Amino acid sequence: MSKITPYERKVYYYETDQMGVMHHSNYIRVFEEARIYYLDKAGMPFDVIEGMGLYMPTLELDCKYKHPLAFNETFHVEIRGEKFNGATLNLSYKVTNTNGDICAEGTSRHCFTDKNMKPVRIKRSHPDLYNAIAVHIEPSEKQ
Amino acid sequence: MSKITPYERKVYYYETDQMGVMHHSNYIRVFEEARIYYLDKAGMPFDVIEGMGLYMPTLELDCKYKHPLAFNETFHVEIRGEKFNGATLNLSYKVTNTNGDICAEGTSRHCFTDKNMKPVRIKRSHPDLYNAIAVHIEPSEKQ
Amino acid sequence: MSKITPYERKVYYYETDQMGVMHHSNYIRVFEEARIYYLDKAGMPFDVIEGMGLYMPTLELDCKYKHPLAFNETFHVEIRGEKFNGATLNLSYKVTNTNGDICAEGTSRHCFTDKNMKPVRIKRSHPDLYNAIAVHIEPSEKQ
Amino acid sequence: MSKITPYERKVYYYETDQMGVMHHSNYIRVFEEARIYYLDKAGMPFDVIEGMGLYMPTLELDCKYKHPLAFNETFHVEIRGEKFNGATLNLSYKVTNTNGDICAEGTSRHCFTDKNMKPVRIKRSHPDLYNAIAVHIEPSEKQ
Repeated sequence: MSKITPYERKVYYYETDQMGVMHHSNYIRVFEEARIYYLDKAGMPFDVIEGMGLYMPTLELDCKYKHPLAFNETFHVEIRGEKFNGATLNLSYKVTNTNGDICAEGTSRHCFTDKNMKPVRIKRSHPDLYNAIAVHIEPSEKQ
Repeated sequence: MSKITPYERKVYYYETDQMGVMHHSNYIRVFEEARIYYLDKAGMPFDVIEGMGLYMPTLELDCKYKHPLAFNETFHVEIRGEKFNGATLNLSYKVTNTNGDICAEGTSRHCFTDKNMKPVRIKRSHPDLYNAIAVHIEPSEKQ
Repeated sequence: MSKITPYERKVYYYETDQMGVMHHSNYIRVFEEARIYYLDKAGMPFDVIEGMGLYMPTLELDCKYKHPLAFNETFHVEIRGEKFNGATLNLSYKVTNTNGDICAEGTSRHCFTDKNMKPVRIKRSHPDLYNAIAVHIEPSEKQ
Repeated sequence: MSKITPYERKVYYYETDQMGVMHHSNYIRVFEEARIYYLDKAGMPFDVIEGMGLYMPTLELDCKYKHPLAFNETFHVEIRGEKFNGATLNLSYKVTNTNGDICAEGTSRHCFTDKNMKPVRIKRSHPDLYNAIAVHIEPSEKQ
C-alpha cells in the first residue's frame, strides 16, 4: 500500500496518561484508524465492506514501543500488506514522529466473517473485494 | 434507588491524563457503568433490556467537576431516579472519594427506543419493565 | 472564534458501541479535540500553554444529543467563546454532520490553574495569553 | 502469581463496538488493569511504585483473540510472571469467560525507568521492590 500517503494526526490530550505520553493502548486504536484510512484510500471503505454483510475481526496483534509520543505531537502511520490468501490478511504498521524516529512498530492479522462471526473466504464470495485487497499486496507477499 | 449499595471501583491507569488525574470524559463513562450496575441490582440487567428489542440512548447529560480523582483511588457512585414518565428517565449521580469528598455531580436523561431508534413508550409496550423502573423512583418524583 | 475553519474528522470504529453509533462519551472527547484545535489555530497551542506552567481543567460541561453519528461519517465542530473574565472561560460547541444536521450541542467551563491545581488569574500572571483568548470572544461576551 | 485470586469484572457498555462485542483494543487495557490488581495484591501498589520515582512503561505486547466477550459478560484474567532480571519483566495473561472458554491470551514486557524515562535496574536501586516482584516469579522463570 506504498503509494498511499501515510495516515497522519496529532496526539489528543485524552490519549495521554500520567506518564505524560500517549498511553500504550492507544497505538492499537491508531493501528485501526490507519487500517481504515488505507482501506478508504484503496477504494474499499470499511463501512461499505460491513454493508456487504462482512466483519473483519482482529485475530492477533503485537506492538513494540520504541519512542514515546507527546500530547499534540504529529505522527504518521505507514501500513504494509504482508500476506493475504483470501481468508486471512496480515498487516504491518510503522508509527513515526516528524523527526523520523520510529515510535512503534506492530502487526495485525484479520479474517473476514459474516454477521454471525462465521468465517467467510472472500475470494469466492466477494471476488471484487478480494481483488481490491490483493492488488495492494506485493506479489511475493501473497500466500 | 437508595437501598442499593453504591457502585465502587478504583481509577484505572489508562483513565489518567497528563494532569495526573482521571480525565474528565471518563466520569461520563463511570456514570454509564453505575447506571448499568443499578439496573442489574434492581433486577433489570441492561443486556436483558436490549434483549427485549430496546435501546436506552442518552438524550442529555451534564457534569460538574468538584475534586479530582487520582490513579488507583477508590470512588463510589450513587444514583437517584429523578423523574420517569414511561417515555424519558432522568437520573442524577454523585461521585465521592473515600474521604467523603464529592468529586463530581451530574445528571442524565434517557429515552427508550426500538432497534431502529424509534421512541417507544414502555408503559404500554413493556409494562413489567416500566413497573420495575417506576418502583425505584420516589412517588413525588414521577411526572 | 468564527473565522477559524471548523474542526473536522471522521468517526473511528472504536468510537462506536453496540447501538451502531458513536458512543455518547466520545462527544466529550471530541469537544476537547476541537477546543485544542481552536487554541492551536488561534495561536495558543495547548502544549505551549501547559509549558507556561498552566493547566486548564474542565469545571463543568453539558451535552444534548440530537442525531447519531455513524462509523466513518464526517462531522464538524464549531466552537464559540461565550464568556471570559480572566479566571473562567465558557465555550459552546455545535457538532454537525455533512447534511448540516445538528448531532450534538454542548458547553464547557474551564479555569486556569498552576501545576498544583491552584487557580490562577491569567489576566495578571499571563497577560499575553489573556489577550490572545480575549480577542476571540465577542465584546458583548466578556464579563 | 498463582496464589492470587484472578482479576474479575464485567464488560462495560462503552467497551463494545458495532460488532456487538468488546473492542479488541480494550483487552490491552484489561491487561493493564489486571497487572495493577496483581501488583496491589502482591503488596506493591502501582501508585506506591510511582511514588518511589519509578515508571514501568510497556516495551512490547501481543494478544491473540480467541473468543469474543459480550456486554455485561463476566470475565477473569490470570497473570503469570514469566521472566524478571531486575531490568525487564515479562508477564503473560489469560482472559476467560465464566464457561471457562479462553477469550484472549497475551504477553507484555516492561522495564523500570525514572521520571525522565531513563532505565533503572531496580535490583540495585530498589532491592525491596525487586525482591517483592522476584518472589512471585517461579525459580525456573528468573533469568
